[in-house]
Amino acid sequence: MNETHIRWPHKDLLEVDQLSQQDVDILLEQALHFQEINQRPIKKVPILRGKSVVLFFAEPSTRTKTSFDAAGKRLSADTYSLATSGSSLAKGESLKDTALTLEAMAPDVIVIRHSSSGAAQFLAERLNCGIVNGGDGWHAHPTQALLDCFSLRQAWGQQFTGKTLLIAGDIAHSRVARSNINLLSRLGVRLRVCAPRTLLPVAINSWPVEVHDNLNNAVRDVDAVMCLRLQLERQQAGLLPNLAEYARRFCLTPRHMELTRPGAKILHPGPMNRGLEIASALADSPQSLILDQVAAGVSTRMAILFLMATKNDGEADI
Amino acid sequence: MNETHIRWPHKDLLEVDQLSQQDVDILLEQALHFQEINQRPIKKVPILRGKSVVLFFAEPSTRTKTSFDAAGKRLSADTYSLATSGSSLAKGESLKDTALTLEAMAPDVIVIRHSSSGAAQFLAERLNCGIVNGGDGWHAHPTQALLDCFSLRQAWGQQFTGKTLLIAGDIAHSRVARSNINLLSRLGVRLRVCAPRTLLPVAINSWPVEVHDNLNNAVRDVDAVMCLRLQLERQQAGLLPNLAEYARRFCLTPRHMELTRPGAKILHPGPMNRGLEIASALADSPQSLILDQVAAGVSTRMAILFLMATKNDGEADI
Amino acid sequence: MNETHIRWPHKDLLEVDQLSQQDVDILLEQALHFQEINQRPIKKVPILRGKSVVLFFAEPSTRTKTSFDAAGKRLSADTYSLATSGSSLAKGESLKDTALTLEAMAPDVIVIRHSSSGAAQFLAERLNCGIVNGGDGWHAHPTQALLDCFSLRQAWGQQFTGKTLLIAGDIAHSRVARSNINLLSRLGVRLRVCAPRTLLPVAINSWPVEVHDNLNNAVRDVDAVMCLRLQLERQQAGLLPNLAEYARRFCLTPRHMELTRPGAKILHPGPMNRGLEIASALADSPQSLILDQVAAGVSTRMAILFLMATKNDGEADI
Repeated sequence: MNETHIRWPHKDLLEVDQLSQQDVDILLEQALHFQEINQRPIKKVPILRGKSVVLFFAEPSTRTKTSFDAAGKRLSADTYSLATSGSSLAKGESLKDTALTLEAMAPDVIVIRHSSSGAAQFLAERLNCGIVNGGDGWHAHPTQALLDCFSLRQAWGQQFTGKTLLIAGDIAHSRVARSNINLLSRLGVRLRVCAPRTLLPVAINSWPVEVHDNLNNAVRDVDAVMCLRLQLERQQAGLLPNLAEYARRFCLTPRHMELTRPGAKILHPGPMNRGLEIASALADSPQSLILDQVAAGVSTRMAILFLMATKNDGEADI
Repeated sequence: MNETHIRWPHKDLLEVDQLSQQDVDILLEQALHFQEINQRPIKKVPILRGKSVVLFFAEPSTRTKTSFDAAGKRLSADTYSLATSGSSLAKGESLKDTALTLEAMAPDVIVIRHSSSGAAQFLAERLNCGIVNGGDGWHAHPTQALLDCFSLRQAWGQQFTGKTLLIAGDIAHSRVARSNINLLSRLGVRLRVCAPRTLLPVAINSWPVEVHDNLNNAVRDVDAVMCLRLQLERQQAGLLPNLAEYARRFCLTPRHMELTRPGAKILHPGPMNRGLEIASALADSPQSLILDQVAAGVSTRMAILFLMATKNDGEADI
Repeated sequence: MNETHIRWPHKDLLEVDQLSQQDVDILLEQALHFQEINQRPIKKVPILRGKSVVLFFAEPSTRTKTSFDAAGKRLSADTYSLATSGSSLAKGESLKDTALTLEAMAPDVIVIRHSSSGAAQFLAERLNCGIVNGGDGWHAHPTQALLDCFSLRQAWGQQFTGKTLLIAGDIAHSRVARSNINLLSRLGVRLRVCAPRTLLPVAINSWPVEVHDNLNNAVRDVDAVMCLRLQLERQQAGLLPNLAEYARRFCLTPRHMELTRPGAKILHPGPMNRGLEIASALADSPQSLILDQVAAGVSTRMAILFLMATKNDGEADI
């Protein structure tokens, strides 16, 4: 463990672009420490005892919510789950009033997932406690980007410069893609995207990415491919001809992996549509980092909760 | 801390009228102690370690349920959440059998919220463990009255005698109003209510309150105004002409607050309909105790759970 | 307490037939120890601190889920609740992927309830962590059988040989009946079933039971009767003439209990339809073990979680 004192400078975690390269280093090093704890038989440390974390999920989620719940509990924080159904939002209370009410109960951190872009920022501006954006609309999903970054860093031997990542699938509607491109491009990763035109954002030309619409070309010499979940409602919205045609053109298969650099990795934020955006065999292959991403999620979120909840306790001492 | 031993005489908390003035004093003093703990960085004490509290909410609620959950966890009790959906009540099990089943798991306290008046009492008569009424139909909401009492006591410098509180809004269907009037009238507070006739209970003349139907008159020289949430379904039930008309006559505005005693406070049990029963600016004004009420809710419920769960542990020692 | 070291040999608990008689003895003795702890004012021991238990219930349940939750918390494990609604299963994720995701968060035990027979085994074959079958379709409910066994053992003075148990009601669709018959017949209990033909399984003749369709004959000289819940949808499926007729023929009443051995006991896995499969007076009578079963459920599940979660911690020491 590092003996120096850490000052974490951020009240909230809203988007990755608020993090300097040094912030990212501190966070990922801290996550590495917690990952080690997560491999012990007793996966629990008392460092957030008496702190509380509210999980305010206004959209359904297994992974992200359970991951934050596990992160909080392993640090000995108390966690509180709030779903929309059963909450006062169902009675027509505004997000602002729900949030002020939660804050009056004095939690240390509120994690919010919401279908509206900007919901987390809205709370961050109004509340004194720390706000973590657990995914807001199509806008941002910073903890997913940080855990992906953690997984790639491990897989790539701490090295980002000179690596190439392809993100394939529904870029337009993906907060995962936005946050990953923002974070990884700044760390020196070269980025490509591959999708049908209808699933690319209008402003794609201003993004720091190489744009492809042919997966065979897109995978050539990359060091990793991240497949995105295709929301099946995109077809109904007229953005896709049909799912079989989509799969034929954009489903990542073992044949594509022969065109990448040797040892290239495969990522997916889950939940997967096996056979639609990713061949089932690849999901379970040795190249897949998909379950590493899940484990990394707990460690990375432990680091985030720890740094944020101890920010005001004098100096946070790793 | 007080060095004397406390005997809390009540197995259950069903309605405020079971509490003597001395009981209320003990409870509010205990709550004050916990409020101090809730302002520390480590908001947790081990005094209910190994005790368990069941939160059995057969009606949706953010505030009350989360407040009890926080109260239990800050005392180190284990808390269990049971919603109707997902419970055996959905399979047609009777309230009695669900309650007996819960009791057989040996909790120390069961908090119940239910749409039927008398549900909490029904359980209290049948179970050996402590029952807290978390709101039953239009009947009673004793913990809300106690937290309101706590907030007013702080705001009024421990002084109830000679103070006047106006409760404005849907008195007829409000368990909050019933419990508050019961409790505060006995403590010496003068009470007024203001509502359209259709939202007053039939027996209002036998209540210890002054009845108004004009808000300008009702607010004159009061020390606090408590606005009640208007359930929007009252209009469909034909009890209101329309919401705009209701707001014009009964929405508390800054203009009304010029007619009160100086420094008069504003309360609302939440969730608020801003602009309908309370002007948005007032909700966020320095006169507002609305967020104090939420914080007081956790402290007051900690006191209730503590006194009830340690009742049989020999002498409870503060 | 026993001073010898216990090796629990089972990664998973899928069905009672995997348990040897010695396994059952170890488990019930351990449960007895925990039952004693559950009668103390402080019902909590730190033996699973830092372990985690996921409660993955894809079917609604009050008793079983809360029972496992209490079992985990009393051993100081962290528990995680996952319902189908609000989980990624709602997004169309496969059971396999949900389970792999959960496992990647490194829980010690996953308890699963699922409407598909074989769901627990499906997970057990794919995951490294311990899987407890919390009820799968009509197939098996091993923890219910173990707690029933615990309750009968207490009531019968440790003696199974020579005792007779009647199971009355919807045998065909009951995982409770299947698991109980499997377990108790091996322990030496003589078993009878009583039901209309339409509610008996096709292969009933190969089961180690005596088959009755007249309750007056079936109860003669038994040492206990276990009534099963009648799912009301059986009538719509055409398996019953009507509920009044069913009750007339198959509802256990005080009159039937006069025909049993003296002191015979009554069990029901709950939730009960009072007046349909069991007379209300019997449910609340001194002969009823129904609430003992609930209490036994917590103790038995504590024993299961303890043995499974400490299996790999070197020798488990009682």
